[in-house]
Amino acid sequence: MEEEQKVKLLGAWFSPFVYRVRLALALKGIQYEYIEQDLTNKSSLLLHSNPIHKRVPVLIHGGKPIPESLIIIDYLDSIWKDNPILPEDPYQRAMAHSWAKFIEEKFTEVIRRALMLEGEQQEKEVLQAKDALEILEGELKGKKFFGGDTMGFLDIVMSWITFWLGVIEEVAGFQVFDPIEYPRLKKWKDSFLELPLIKGSFPPRDSLLPYFSKIRRCGLASAAKK
Amino acid sequence: MEEEQKVKLLGAWFSPFVYRVRLALALKGIQYEYIEQDLTNKSSLLLHSNPIHKRVPVLIHGGKPIPESLIIIDYLDSIWKDNPILPEDPYQRAMAHSWAKFIEEKFTEVIRRALMLEGEQQEKEVLQAKDALEILEGELKGKKFFGGDTMGFLDIVMSWITFWLGVIEEVAGFQVFDPIEYPRLKKWKDSFLELPLIKGSFPPRDSLLPYFSKIRRCGLASAAKK
Repeated sequence: MEEEQKVKLLGAWFSPFVYRVRLALALKGIQYEYIEQDLTNKSSLLLHSNPIHKRVPVLIHGGKPIPESLIIIDYLDSIWKDNPILPEDPYQRAMAHSWAKFIEEKFTEVIRRALMLEGEQQEKEVLQAKDALEILEGELKGKKFFGGDTMGFLDIVMSWITFWLGVIEEVAGFQVFDPIEYPRLKKWKDSFLELPLIKGSFPPRDSLLPYFSKIRRCGLASAAKK
Repeated sequence: MEEEQKVKLLGAWFSPFVYRVRLALALKGIQYEYIEQDLTNKSSLLLHSNPIHKRVPVLIHGGKPIPESLIIIDYLDSIWKDNPILPEDPYQRAMAHSWAKFIEEKFTEVIRRALMLEGEQQEKEVLQAKDALEILEGELKGKKFFGGDTMGFLDIVMSWITFWLGVIEEVAGFQVFDPIEYPRLKKWKDSFLELPLIKGSFPPRDSLLPYFSKIRRCGLASAAKK
């Protein structure tokens, strides 16, 4: 591959956001160099590539860095046309972006907060997350995946729910995803986990548990100081 | 115009998010029907068009509703190719989306919170907003508008800062945008306000002031109850 077209990914093994990008790259069959980052001791490559947010994932394509998992996936899809991830139709595309925004704001961010809270405050976030799942359950009516018959953009956005959510629930002592309450989401999760691309693609659960426990402890300690 | 291609916009006169869409429509020269919504008594058209968020703006094109100001602008730009708003180059496009996300999360949302707070809590948000302005000031180096020589996507995202921010500052009793501290942003604001498209396009300040005062009072009262 020409140096100027090389694809690199700055990531961290535990990150569900980096996982999204790896999934998109695998789906597209794009060759890339994966560069693990130590977020406790940030490399000059990371600081230089993402000076504002200083976080992963960052995709570097032909020397140019792009931050944010969903923006990276949009970019990959606009450069590599095979195996499209987003719908081609502008209306369907807009709706996919709108749902992605909903998932991030009303579910992903809510669970991120719940991980760092306890008691009544956590319970409030859990209820809000369940409201979002209820709406997503409705959206799956008559569909195997969020995009239809095959895995697409929203399935990638939601991918962390099939694996990381369980880890977070265990660590933080709550349950939002009760398979009996959300039978369509349960079926979606099963179909997703059966995809050959997904099998064996998650980081080891035994390592994630202590990692997210530590994040929770730090979050609780920092909240207590306020 | 054929019925199925008609463009309608559900809006509210005071909303800076609706303003963004009106600006994009004006820039494109798109004819549309504007339908003012009473958000204290939501119409069935709004509830049907945006069942999840139940808020404005909603664009309806050929009967199909699209929510969220920035998603609407992306959509308009992909359907009406004249007077492009986003850069055509995929990398520049990704970076525009990344900056928009930065502005929304690190400035727009922060000011929204500051409007509803007072004392130390407000001061914390104000400092965070100033950090974001400092970064945006750097991004304007050598440029008239965020996109370069002409108004584009990020200028529309930032448009509320040229008018609504002053109203919010007055109502909530803080100042984040000191023109001496941010000379490039000051110059950008002046250039923006001089555009023929912008002149006379804002809602009356005398009506916005009591409106945002009321929002602040409600926000403070609801925080006090918690």
